[in-house]
Amino acid sequence: MFQAFDKNITTYLELSLQESELVHHYFQHKTYPKKTLLLKPGQVCNFEAYLLNGCVKKYYIDQDANETILQFAVEDWWVSDIASFCQQIPSRLYIETMEETELLQINYQEKELLFKQVPKLERVFRLLVQRSYSVLEDRFFTVITDSAEARYLNFVKKYPMLPQRVPQYQIASYLGITPEALSRIKASLSHKK
Amino acid sequence: MFQAFDKNITTYLELSLQESELVHHYFQHKTYPKKTLLLKPGQVCNFEAYLLNGCVKKYYIDQDANETILQFAVEDWWVSDIASFCQQIPSRLYIETMEETELLQINYQEKELLFKQVPKLERVFRLLVQRSYSVLEDRFFTVITDSAEARYLNFVKKYPMLPQRVPQYQIASYLGITPEALSRIKASLSHKK
Repeated sequence: MFQAFDKNITTYLELSLQESELVHHYFQHKTYPKKTLLLKPGQVCNFEAYLLNGCVKKYYIDQDANETILQFAVEDWWVSDIASFCQQIPSRLYIETMEETELLQINYQEKELLFKQVPKLERVFRLLVQRSYSVLEDRFFTVITDSAEARYLNFVKKYPMLPQRVPQYQIASYLGITPEALSRIKASLSHKK
Repeated sequence: MFQAFDKNITTYLELSLQESELVHHYFQHKTYPKKTLLLKPGQVCNFEAYLLNGCVKKYYIDQDANETILQFAVEDWWVSDIASFCQQIPSRLYIETMEETELLQINYQEKELLFKQVPKLERVFRLLVQRSYSVLEDRFFTVITDSAEARYLNFVKKYPMLPQRVPQYQIASYLGITPEALSRIKASLSHKK
């Protein structure tokens, strides 16, 4: 069960057998059905999770009921609301499974205990947060600077497995365009080929 | 010179005198005149810097020559291009001083050396990156969801010292609106008071 997870962690740092066992001890294995809300606005996000398989979306709903998808996560990705989790403050976000999803998750208190026992994991999580920062910055740039077509091409490059797994209107929401606009972009791109 | 810097670091973690001295050894003290470019696109960002005083802006210029300001930083803030610095990849950003600016800065190689000598600093920098992540996420939310007026009010709350120090058109660039629109918002707000 921990094979892919261990590989993900040891990208950043080698762990001894004993350290690995401690890590496994603190990460809980959970399986959630499709369309489970793992987090909603007002709740403090109390998990940082590694996806063994499945797919989740992290999104925001504004006062006019428009949904903006901030991130999709699939197998071998991490998901959390970092701001809410790290500062233990209420979230503004939803996190929801889009397929049956299997996770390894840790809560705030246990993560702090784990850091006390294996301090070198601070490095792993520093590097993970840095990567999340880069992903968010990319997302930000895409929104402020790219055309809708460029955003779609960027999406397909970043998530090559998702167009087959996620409904069109969800992809449109991630891109910040209407489903009709997305259809037009896809038609135009297939015409260009 | 290191008083405010030490206070900033020890918000996250106590350091022994010996550890503090090591940290001071690796951070270089620099003063840059107003309008110095500390980073431009294509360069790898090779500093993470703590501002002793002054002001810098981090911005992006798109292909139509539009400037979007991502962040201002003033005394007691940190500045870097995290994605470029951490992955040692070329930046897409400019970082430029807006006033004479005094920094304590460290480069990538020296930061890694410092981590080897004082591993518990991994925690400090993990927490700093987490804070930067929250700031960027706030910025992202503001752009995708808030009205221009709400963005302005958010800006004044976050940077109360900046309206007196930064030209109006730069504030407009941060807000993603024209200087004329900013004038209208300010007039409307002062009318409401």
